[in-house]
Amino acid sequence: MDAYAALLPRPVKARPTSGFFQLTPDIPVTLSGSGTTHAMVGSFLAELLRPYDNAIPVNTTGSTEVVITDSEGDPGTYTLRVTPERLEIRAGDSEGVAGALTTVRQLLPDSIWRRAAAPPAEGWRAPCGVVEDRPAYGWRGAMLDVVRHFFPKRTVLRYVDLLAAHRFNRLHLHLTDDQGWRVQSLRHPELHTTGSWRPSTRLGPDGPDDGTPYGGYYTLDDLAEIASYARLRGITVVPEINVPGHTSALRAAAPGLGRPGEPQAVLDTVWAGGTSIAPTAATEDYLHDVLEEIIEATGAPYVHLGGDECSMDWWSEDPEVAAAMAAAGCTEPQQMHGHFLRSLGRFLAERGVRMIVWDEGHLTGGVLDDSIVMAWRGEEASARAAATHDLVRSPLFPTYFNFDQSDLEEERRSEGGPITLEDVAAFTPAPDSWSPEQRDRVIGGQFQIWTEWVPSERHLDYLAFPRACALAEVLWSGAVDDMAEFRARLGRHLRRLDAMGVDYRPLDGPLPWQSGGTGVWRRSSPGRIKETRAWLESISGRP
Amino acid sequence: MDAYAALLPRPVKARPTSGFFQLTPDIPVTLSGSGTTHAMVGSFLAELLRPYDNAIPVNTTGSTEVVITDSEGDPGTYTLRVTPERLEIRAGDSEGVAGALTTVRQLLPDSIWRRAAAPPAEGWRAPCGVVEDRPAYGWRGAMLDVVRHFFPKRTVLRYVDLLAAHRFNRLHLHLTDDQGWRVQSLRHPELHTTGSWRPSTRLGPDGPDDGTPYGGYYTLDDLAEIASYARLRGITVVPEINVPGHTSALRAAAPGLGRPGEPQAVLDTVWAGGTSIAPTAATEDYLHDVLEEIIEATGAPYVHLGGDECSMDWWSEDPEVAAAMAAAGCTEPQQMHGHFLRSLGRFLAERGVRMIVWDEGHLTGGVLDDSIVMAWRGEEASARAAATHDLVRSPLFPTYFNFDQSDLEEERRSEGGPITLEDVAAFTPAPDSWSPEQRDRVIGGQFQIWTEWVPSERHLDYLAFPRACALAEVLWSGAVDDMAEFRARLGRHLRRLDAMGVDYRPLDGPLPWQSGGTGVWRRSSPGRIKETRAWLESISGRP
Repeated sequence: MDAYAALLPRPVKARPTSGFFQLTPDIPVTLSGSGTTHAMVGSFLAELLRPYDNAIPVNTTGSTEVVITDSEGDPGTYTLRVTPERLEIRAGDSEGVAGALTTVRQLLPDSIWRRAAAPPAEGWRAPCGVVEDRPAYGWRGAMLDVVRHFFPKRTVLRYVDLLAAHRFNRLHLHLTDDQGWRVQSLRHPELHTTGSWRPSTRLGPDGPDDGTPYGGYYTLDDLAEIASYARLRGITVVPEINVPGHTSALRAAAPGLGRPGEPQAVLDTVWAGGTSIAPTAATEDYLHDVLEEIIEATGAPYVHLGGDECSMDWWSEDPEVAAAMAAAGCTEPQQMHGHFLRSLGRFLAERGVRMIVWDEGHLTGGVLDDSIVMAWRGEEASARAAATHDLVRSPLFPTYFNFDQSDLEEERRSEGGPITLEDVAAFTPAPDSWSPEQRDRVIGGQFQIWTEWVPSERHLDYLAFPRACALAEVLWSGAVDDMAEFRARLGRHLRRLDAMGVDYRPLDGPLPWQSGGTGVWRRSSPGRIKETRAWLESISGRP
Repeated sequence: MDAYAALLPRPVKARPTSGFFQLTPDIPVTLSGSGTTHAMVGSFLAELLRPYDNAIPVNTTGSTEVVITDSEGDPGTYTLRVTPERLEIRAGDSEGVAGALTTVRQLLPDSIWRRAAAPPAEGWRAPCGVVEDRPAYGWRGAMLDVVRHFFPKRTVLRYVDLLAAHRFNRLHLHLTDDQGWRVQSLRHPELHTTGSWRPSTRLGPDGPDDGTPYGGYYTLDDLAEIASYARLRGITVVPEINVPGHTSALRAAAPGLGRPGEPQAVLDTVWAGGTSIAPTAATEDYLHDVLEEIIEATGAPYVHLGGDECSMDWWSEDPEVAAAMAAAGCTEPQQMHGHFLRSLGRFLAERGVRMIVWDEGHLTGGVLDDSIVMAWRGEEASARAAATHDLVRSPLFPTYFNFDQSDLEEERRSEGGPITLEDVAAFTPAPDSWSPEQRDRVIGGQFQIWTEWVPSERHLDYLAFPRACALAEVLWSGAVDDMAEFRARLGRHLRRLDAMGVDYRPLDGPLPWQSGGTGVWRRSSPGRIKETRAWLESISGRP
């Protein structure tokens, strides 16, 4: 397989020519670009040309150079020309440059993906050719739940590397939920001192209590580091502060925001926690502090406000909330849900930040005109959202990668399944059955990993890869056209993941230590995905 | 605290002068050094001056330069001179350069320890001054057991970073044991296909079976990557292939090497596995293949052969082993133990590699003249080994960092304890009570982390730090002279660990999620360390 045919995701056009471009430490770089592109290229070359403890053989004839421009073409697009004398990147913006740099790295020998390795005898060289490329979708994302299980910043930084290697450009961090609050607050330190840990975990509603304290959080400096590191790799971090449901940890830290008289604690089971915060002005003020700190740390152009699975029955009965509802002209709790989210959304908009919500928020009217919706509850919810708003496709099937990868007996426990590599490859972000207007509203998609059953980084790798490779192809190239060709190319691509040390699931089934065994990780009942999908459609009209 | 007073470990001499040296991306570097030093400096500067996504303000007056030499002085030594115009390092060798570079990094603002961060308003600058430095001991190590729990290569690479930040220079990887074989073999692939995993784990002899398959291994390329990455940071990787005891995983992969008729399986409990391999020529041939592959991958100048805790009663009864013993002129199994290790040691010596053994190997004569002994069983075993051989101090007390850090009620989740920060700081590698010859034989020391009860990288961090900071001071500076001053300096140093994202144990006790809780991880009884030490001395004369 020639190097240009082995690129993953597949570029729009890629054509090999003859000869090689030799990368050398002292290569001159001509750069016309923004500050971010400048830093990105510097960082990339420093990594690629990092000194090895044996000399890099240099065997160039004549002078060589690298030329990079980030203002020729549409956002995300790039043209890469590799000749023996010149490596030339003409991109529409920094993200386009990032995509081109990933392509360059894929053209080099696989060991370039290691953090230290001897170059091959012929040195680091890329075969010559031309790539003309543009992404099918502008939002190519991954959502990581760092609440149910916490992943330290080193894991998130590595996740950024793995995403960038597949030309993803969004990392959605699910930072808060019932089971924990995972970010420091300087103005409300109770959020990280109290909200960041639980005394034990019950594995399922009828599971045993593990008796082991669990927790952790990112400092605001950590979050800034993650965002900065990601930006240099073409990835925008999208923080999620999930309100008004999924707030047990928030209520444990700030009991005054919850239902008066109700005992408040960080939830110790992995399932959803039921109740909600009061949608009052006091709560909004509190959240404004939190949102300001997060926006300042990340410089995020998007903030996800959650809005899903909210129990709000008690709102009408509570005098304070009832007064707030009356003042807002809301007669039903779900109207108030929409009002509350819109109000927070306006706070974000004043700071130049677009709000994102799950599809329940769209249903209750908790959206502004330019809000983005993520519809997790299947086709009906997605189509409805796309009728009025920009949509990032994130339906449970097939983008919840925490589900089983097959119906094999030995697959490790998750929430059901399967969602196979083929299911992901067959995903159509903008279905033909939708109207042209709806299809135009699909700005991209992302995979989700909810981590109730994901205790370690190794298990995260196993769930994400290689399914993320297939979604990368769908979102960058528009579709996986030929599954047999894709599988062959993926087999080749897995050698890059080997060099990066990714604990992916092999194509023919899990490794012995990735399998479920007989204990608590023994897998769930096979074939459950059909029931799950039917259930999803049945609830997709509920706020 | 001025920057020169905040260095940890403390240099021999450090004196601030006035002004600052400004690090800038285009700084000229004059380098007289070996290939390794050249690569090391390039790697260091690339990391330090990695581009950030905002501009680095440069505010230099006149021209500045970096000058580095690696052949002035004894091995490991360095002199660092920082003036407004010049950053000058004169070191005895590459390790000396590595030590100096760590000092430079400690002189810079703390955020330089992050992987991406905006520089302070004044840029990256180091206050001027002079450091004259030399290590008290040439072997400053850490042993990591990657068998009982496996740590992927990314964790090991990060461990290298953390060690280098404290001027450690040896990483001893305990690669094989009863519970797994953690390195690929091209000649004997059964070692990584069969030996690398166990179907479940029992947490203690009377603990429940977790029913969960567990495993993993490094490819030879991974091992080469780790060794190369470490070398660029002044650290030598020391692989351990533990024979002839602790070999359940080896015997599971190659049953012919074990006791005929005995069922063989990778051990599923966290405790030692009893039996051993046959010390025959066939076994030696098999191990030669393994050792050659490991030496080739790592370029290691030392290989640890284990030699501890070997049950060899069956050797006299087995006809094949009895014949081998007769041929070797051995009448007792323990003589054969020594003979077997010596023979493997000669194989290593022919390849320019020094052998290392635990103190049981020294007791049975399993050492060559230039072998290095690690004595884990207390003072008596250490003193005996130092009478005849180079000794790396690794006594259980106080260098087994898998023991509890205090007797606090919430701290109990290891094999007993405590081994406190103060215990480590008070450690005397070469006791006054020893003869000058014995004291001269002490080439250094290392801390051990056995990972029976260390399921995650976060828990590894918690056990290693800050105790490793105290051992770093003992091994580099010779002793912690003033505990109050050290604690104050350590408090300052922890901000560097915060920037690196280290999950260390705070000085005033574990964080909520670092404590033992009430579940399976709560286990040790307080104050057990006295009994453990008495038991160690009682067995220290047994082969």
